[in-house]
Amino acid sequence: MWNEHVHERRDPSVGRIYPDGMHGAIAEGLRRELGERVSVSCATLEEPEHGLTAEALAATDVLTWWGHAAHDRVADAVVERVHARVLDGMGLLVLHSGHFSKIFKRLMGTTCALRWRSDPGGEREVIWTVNPGHPIAAGVPQPIVIPHQEMYGEYFDIPPPDELVFISSFAGGEVFRSGCCYRRGAGRVMYFSPGDQEFPVYHQPQVQRVIANAVAWCGEGATGNDLPSSRDGSSKRHWYLEGA
Amino acid sequence: MWNEHVHERRDPSVGRIYPDGMHGAIAEGLRRELGERVSVSCATLEEPEHGLTAEALAATDVLTWWGHAAHDRVADAVVERVHARVLDGMGLLVLHSGHFSKIFKRLMGTTCALRWRSDPGGEREVIWTVNPGHPIAAGVPQPIVIPHQEMYGEYFDIPPPDELVFISSFAGGEVFRSGCCYRRGAGRVMYFSPGDQEFPVYHQPQVQRVIANAVAWCGEGATGNDLPSSRDGSSKRHWYLEGA
Amino acid sequence: MWNEHVHERRDPSVGRIYPDGMHGAIAEGLRRELGERVSVSCATLEEPEHGLTAEALAATDVLTWWGHAAHDRVADAVVERVHARVLDGMGLLVLHSGHFSKIFKRLMGTTCALRWRSDPGGEREVIWTVNPGHPIAAGVPQPIVIPHQEMYGEYFDIPPPDELVFISSFAGGEVFRSGCCYRRGAGRVMYFSPGDQEFPVYHQPQVQRVIANAVAWCGEGATGNDLPSSRDGSSKRHWYLEGA
Amino acid sequence: MWNEHVHERRDPSVGRIYPDGMHGAIAEGLRRELGERVSVSCATLEEPEHGLTAEALAATDVLTWWGHAAHDRVADAVVERVHARVLDGMGLLVLHSGHFSKIFKRLMGTTCALRWRSDPGGEREVIWTVNPGHPIAAGVPQPIVIPHQEMYGEYFDIPPPDELVFISSFAGGEVFRSGCCYRRGAGRVMYFSPGDQEFPVYHQPQVQRVIANAVAWCGEGATGNDLPSSRDGSSKRHWYLEGA
Repeated sequence: MWNEHVHERRDPSVGRIYPDGMHGAIAEGLRRELGERVSVSCATLEEPEHGLTAEALAATDVLTWWGHAAHDRVADAVVERVHARVLDGMGLLVLHSGHFSKIFKRLMGTTCALRWRSDPGGEREVIWTVNPGHPIAAGVPQPIVIPHQEMYGEYFDIPPPDELVFISSFAGGEVFRSGCCYRRGAGRVMYFSPGDQEFPVYHQPQVQRVIANAVAWCGEGATGNDLPSSRDGSSKRHWYLEGA
Repeated sequence: MWNEHVHERRDPSVGRIYPDGMHGAIAEGLRRELGERVSVSCATLEEPEHGLTAEALAATDVLTWWGHAAHDRVADAVVERVHARVLDGMGLLVLHSGHFSKIFKRLMGTTCALRWRSDPGGEREVIWTVNPGHPIAAGVPQPIVIPHQEMYGEYFDIPPPDELVFISSFAGGEVFRSGCCYRRGAGRVMYFSPGDQEFPVYHQPQVQRVIANAVAWCGEGATGNDLPSSRDGSSKRHWYLEGA
Repeated sequence: MWNEHVHERRDPSVGRIYPDGMHGAIAEGLRRELGERVSVSCATLEEPEHGLTAEALAATDVLTWWGHAAHDRVADAVVERVHARVLDGMGLLVLHSGHFSKIFKRLMGTTCALRWRSDPGGEREVIWTVNPGHPIAAGVPQPIVIPHQEMYGEYFDIPPPDELVFISSFAGGEVFRSGCCYRRGAGRVMYFSPGDQEFPVYHQPQVQRVIANAVAWCGEGATGNDLPSSRDGSSKRHWYLEGA
Repeated sequence: MWNEHVHERRDPSVGRIYPDGMHGAIAEGLRRELGERVSVSCATLEEPEHGLTAEALAATDVLTWWGHAAHDRVADAVVERVHARVLDGMGLLVLHSGHFSKIFKRLMGTTCALRWRSDPGGEREVIWTVNPGHPIAAGVPQPIVIPHQEMYGEYFDIPPPDELVFISSFAGGEVFRSGCCYRRGAGRVMYFSPGDQEFPVYHQPQVQRVIANAVAWCGEGATGNDLPSSRDGSSKRHWYLEGA
């Protein structure tokens, strides 16, 4: 679980909502929903190599990512390391303003820009499941209503999702593809937009349920298959079918 | 252009909005937007074979479909004929309540059920483009606002669209995948949900523009390629690569 | 597990390869790969209602389907019952010549026709994983080589798969999308083409592994979400967001 | 039309096949197939800014890209410029060994690695259409046979294509997704693998037909819609629906 962990310490309004950091609230939900299936560790921007050393990543099945104020302070070398690890099979769950993180833009190949509106007090977001057989939607009410949230609206400049799970509406009339799944190499990537530092979204049990489902889904990517991986991506693989 | 043409003659409220039938309003928009690129004919339920004879279909590049009150009165043999013609390359544009037509359910393989709410006066629908490079979105404002419309909401039980072009929100907070593209055999199918007999949606120029774009897109399906077509679908094709 | 069970009893060449029926070989592989995770029952064409009563289907998480010589003898009412159950969340794994079964054509909405060539002795099929992070490819070698197999080739008239997992080549130079995943309603559908009554394909452990993976994947569809299901598909759902 | 134009001048075997450069053969095919619909210009690595100035790109509807020996010598600033122009609506057709170009990897977000085998004399490639209604397949024979070609095989580490048009087999038994379409921002990207400097593939009329179709398809991306584009990607768009 990665969090830049800037807002919680800098902005009193955020610190009151998330005294243990947003990662604290998210971790609490994961432990409740997934129990012993999951072992949670947290890393933040200020740690050496942002806590994302080669050893740490090798031991990680799924990485969650929250960033906003400090995208530019994430080192490019760390981004490349995370990128290679995703293609090798690690899951990545990108949350909310993480849509503008270096790692998400690197994986998507697009600007990942969107429309937004941030009014004091926020506005109602309603999250609809459009893929009811998807495991990320399991046990999720139709719809989830978030009373106070920042608006994120279309056009969201991402590749067409391989699987679209959720679409949100906002009180202002906007819509947003709020739950998007991608397969990249042997890894899985999900983007889930609800969640903001100014509102207690990550304390809402229904949102925690989606995040737990998403972590479980993202973790099913690695299969140990023989593929031209990012590790040898610098040279193409010269290959013969035995006996062909 | 196919219209069951029941509401306009039966319900005075509909006849006042569409004195020439809904197909009249749609045809007017097509002629304005596409000019000499298109030649429009109309067929209705009451004609022999509903106006959809083998000859008529063979001469048709794109068929638009509006039905609501009389889905069950469309003959199965005609549905099978239209189905075969779509797989052979004819485009099909299904409008609004046509989601429950026999032909659309036949092509989708699902129930095509949805949530709905029909209040007198309707409610605001806002249509967002989520695929800005798609030709069906060309020249379409972001968003289109329809002041009065019946609500159609998720979950909409369709296969995941091959290309999702529009998503709508409604005043009640619902969302809907309102512009969905499919490729089936050599043919193209689009579903576009805006449009209702009780509101003048098909007179709105922006909606007419989308319909014209959709007709143009649906018409690009037939390529004359050699494929196991619906015509010989009853037997598999026994085949050798020459000289293999 | 459904098998029409005609060839094994009628054709001595098939009976020698599959003395317990093709379903016997498939079941053996499932038990070895999935162990206590799975409880296997078999049903055949000759049983009342083909063994697919409402009770049997309600108790089934995943149905596998093998048919060839007797597609037309499967009752339409049973097909509709299986179809409804799939949309309600049951998984369906369609094997080999099942591509022309009523239930697969019903779900796909296309002809499901393909090219084919059946020489005595068959020819080499090589199966390649093109989606290495997909659970159906887990632990599967790259490639699987089947020494003797009937050729199935493109164009295969199916909707573009929601997830394409395998592509095969044949000695004659043909290719085939041999592992195709679909989501329909709350259910999951997979088509896997290898397997033929004249060759011992279903005894090959690598093929059994794919089938076990596919059964596990197909079984994850049902989530109990509130969706307009096939059960009430005959009427649209009139609906209000509480407090909207 | 961009070509690094290294092999043709350095390797006599290539110079004999393509005395006017590979871009010469490709341009000839475009002019024959598209006639006055197209105006062709060529740019190469050695020109200032590789011939891809902001002015040149602004005047370009579709860019074709061939590179192999000198991917690393393409300046990063030029890659970013081309990337931004694609998201703004320019089409990009990436050919053969261009799969490892900076611009293709930038747009895909994956390694784009693949299996390969390059024997003197090459081997037979057979190209199959799996999307017969796609305009890129219009008028293309089923299959195209290329007598001598370098093998490119799966796993090809790309995002699942938005539209898969062609799959190839090789004499060695491999398969390859040889025609892949993507939508990125307002632009369209196609990858087409046939073509190699050592074989006269770009002189083959059927290959020229595919390339002409692909150029036409890629050119339909720009619609002038209002989207958060790469031009203002550095800041999110603060936005209100008028009167909301």
